[in-house]
Amino acid sequence: MDDSGLKMSRRIRRTPFTEDVENHNVSGYTVVNHTLLPKSFGRTLEEDYWHLKKYVQIWDVGCQRQVQIKGQDAERFVQWLTPRNLSKAKSGKCFYSPLVTEEGKIINDPVLLKLSHEKFWLSIADSDVLLWVKGLAVGSNMNVSIKEPDVWPLAIQGPKANELMQEVFGARIGKLKFFNFDWFDFEGQKQLIARSGYSKQGGFEIYLKGFELGSKLWKKIWEVGRKYNIRAGSPNIIERIEAGLLSYGNEMTLDNDPLECGLKKYCCFSNNIDYIGKNALTAINKNGVKRLIRGVRFSGTKQKPCSTPWKVTSKITGQHIGDITSGVYSPHLKTNIGLAMIKRGFWTEKTPVLVLTENGISHYGEVCAIPFEVN
Amino acid sequence: MDDSGLKMSRRIRRTPFTEDVENHNVSGYTVVNHTLLPKSFGRTLEEDYWHLKKYVQIWDVGCQRQVQIKGQDAERFVQWLTPRNLSKAKSGKCFYSPLVTEEGKIINDPVLLKLSHEKFWLSIADSDVLLWVKGLAVGSNMNVSIKEPDVWPLAIQGPKANELMQEVFGARIGKLKFFNFDWFDFEGQKQLIARSGYSKQGGFEIYLKGFELGSKLWKKIWEVGRKYNIRAGSPNIIERIEAGLLSYGNEMTLDNDPLECGLKKYCCFSNNIDYIGKNALTAINKNGVKRLIRGVRFSGTKQKPCSTPWKVTSKITGQHIGDITSGVYSPHLKTNIGLAMIKRGFWTEKTPVLVLTENGISHYGEVCAIPFEVN
Repeated sequence: MDDSGLKMSRRIRRTPFTEDVENHNVSGYTVVNHTLLPKSFGRTLEEDYWHLKKYVQIWDVGCQRQVQIKGQDAERFVQWLTPRNLSKAKSGKCFYSPLVTEEGKIINDPVLLKLSHEKFWLSIADSDVLLWVKGLAVGSNMNVSIKEPDVWPLAIQGPKANELMQEVFGARIGKLKFFNFDWFDFEGQKQLIARSGYSKQGGFEIYLKGFELGSKLWKKIWEVGRKYNIRAGSPNIIERIEAGLLSYGNEMTLDNDPLECGLKKYCCFSNNIDYIGKNALTAINKNGVKRLIRGVRFSGTKQKPCSTPWKVTSKITGQHIGDITSGVYSPHLKTNIGLAMIKRGFWTEKTPVLVLTENGISHYGEVCAIPFEVN
Repeated sequence: MDDSGLKMSRRIRRTPFTEDVENHNVSGYTVVNHTLLPKSFGRTLEEDYWHLKKYVQIWDVGCQRQVQIKGQDAERFVQWLTPRNLSKAKSGKCFYSPLVTEEGKIINDPVLLKLSHEKFWLSIADSDVLLWVKGLAVGSNMNVSIKEPDVWPLAIQGPKANELMQEVFGARIGKLKFFNFDWFDFEGQKQLIARSGYSKQGGFEIYLKGFELGSKLWKKIWEVGRKYNIRAGSPNIIERIEAGLLSYGNEMTLDNDPLECGLKKYCCFSNNIDYIGKNALTAINKNGVKRLIRGVRFSGTKQKPCSTPWKVTSKITGQHIGDITSGVYSPHLKTNIGLAMIKRGFWTEKTPVLVLTENGISHYGEVCAIPFEVN
């Protein structure tokens, strides 16, 4: 990077894999959690999409920073953080766990990893959960210590991930179930690996402990991955939208609650569970949400990803009923698709809409369910 | 922006001024507080530097987000947030106020604006202070409400700023003292304007309330500014380093305390003031810091800004004694300069050092005081 594009400084943190990413001719970044997230490697989104669905990719997702909660009261503290019922949560498992404010608004939607009764990691999307959790700890009178550990996720995604990972870490890793994790040896050290990742193609996330091991790990995976046609990649926006995977900062922000984001199944309303924001969410749940996350399909020329939201209006009344916050052409569905928060009264499937894209053109479309497809 | 450089999405927020910035051919951005900060407009850093010292520039610093603290207990709550003694703080004034954790580590170094006894803004650097403060409020039992208001700073910096701003907002603004603010009319609405900014050239920051007014404000300033040779600009790293202005995420992080960052004068140790982190800071103050922020001057070819820190070693012992976290060639001082956290025993002025820049070359240099120069 030089004068154009993203200006680099220490403040925009590099990951243990950045050097390898550079060696693979990264051509675009974004910034998540003050950390570089590679977004492209000189190929089109569509090429990367088809490749991801057929082979295997290695993604530097070191920007998924961890917030470690450790101490005698960790279990109680973590339950206080999230609407999700964790009373039966077992060690060795991952839990998608929204965090909300007292007003029931979404702070972040991390994956919670339960390492033990006294040790948890929150693997976070783009907001400083570390500060939120540290702030809460100050007034909580609970015995917990909070820090960002030296842990950097590396994702191996795609249908060939299973074979590749077994070759690197042994047959045992093939038995790992979705959203479970276990410890595997790398260079004589135990590393946490989960069956998870920000795609629906299957795969793993290696929670690398030890920044200095990053390049060794990348190179090892790469070497073995050659025969599986491995590529350096990144969460693919086409695949993600098709799968209905939400992105914090795009589909949901501090203005949204988890119910309107379709995350009701992660919100517990039973009497024996208490957490920050429960009163607010209970009231919202009682009154019903005023808008709901939905899919939108629309016609017209093939759209590139929206860099600013696309306005959605009712084709019948002309009202502004929502905005597509992530949208793109789907080569699989052969239509443009997007995720949008749609007003009550308009979110029924097949509601006709108009979508105004960045070039100022309106396109015919309709509301639909998400995920757009499941495989 | 296309496939190279920074990938745009809703998550990377635009400011009220982004459209105008684009119209002025912005050629590089960084991301601060999930928001675009323009960094260059097709000119060299050095051209922008000389221009800033002679004329006037308009900077989109909308990324300096505000955290509003409002309520009956706001005054007490704000004092609890910062080591700075605010007991005599008056409304209408700005206060550089580091925020620290219970361990005395720096969360952020905002400018605090006291709007009234019951209303404050924290104008923040790059970390989610909103979440920290909201987290603290949950357990505090204090009557405060916390939000990010619809307020977007626009900086007018440089020696001609005074004349320009008087022409736009009237002669009264010329009487505003450094780090004071007052309210001025724009388009029939009162706007907060402070005599402040992230340079030593003098100027103002307009805390624009109302996103939709952004483009009107930019264009008005621009129109009047033509005769003063106004340019679209950005905080200039040469000018900032010369002035010894620190940058959160670069010179200081959550690993640093305010004492080693040279911010002791903003830390109160008297008995009648209490705040988060006071015990930790008191202990550090008693024992003395182990490292201290210093300047480093060094020879060799003219350096571009470091994108990763430059290692500083003692020329005598060969020890690694610190890292330059912001460094560049100073055309005024005619030498390379940088800011570095230097180990105890080595921070005396004129201590001889070697600086290892990104190209793998070592350069002779010495430790020096900051600011490098005062004007």
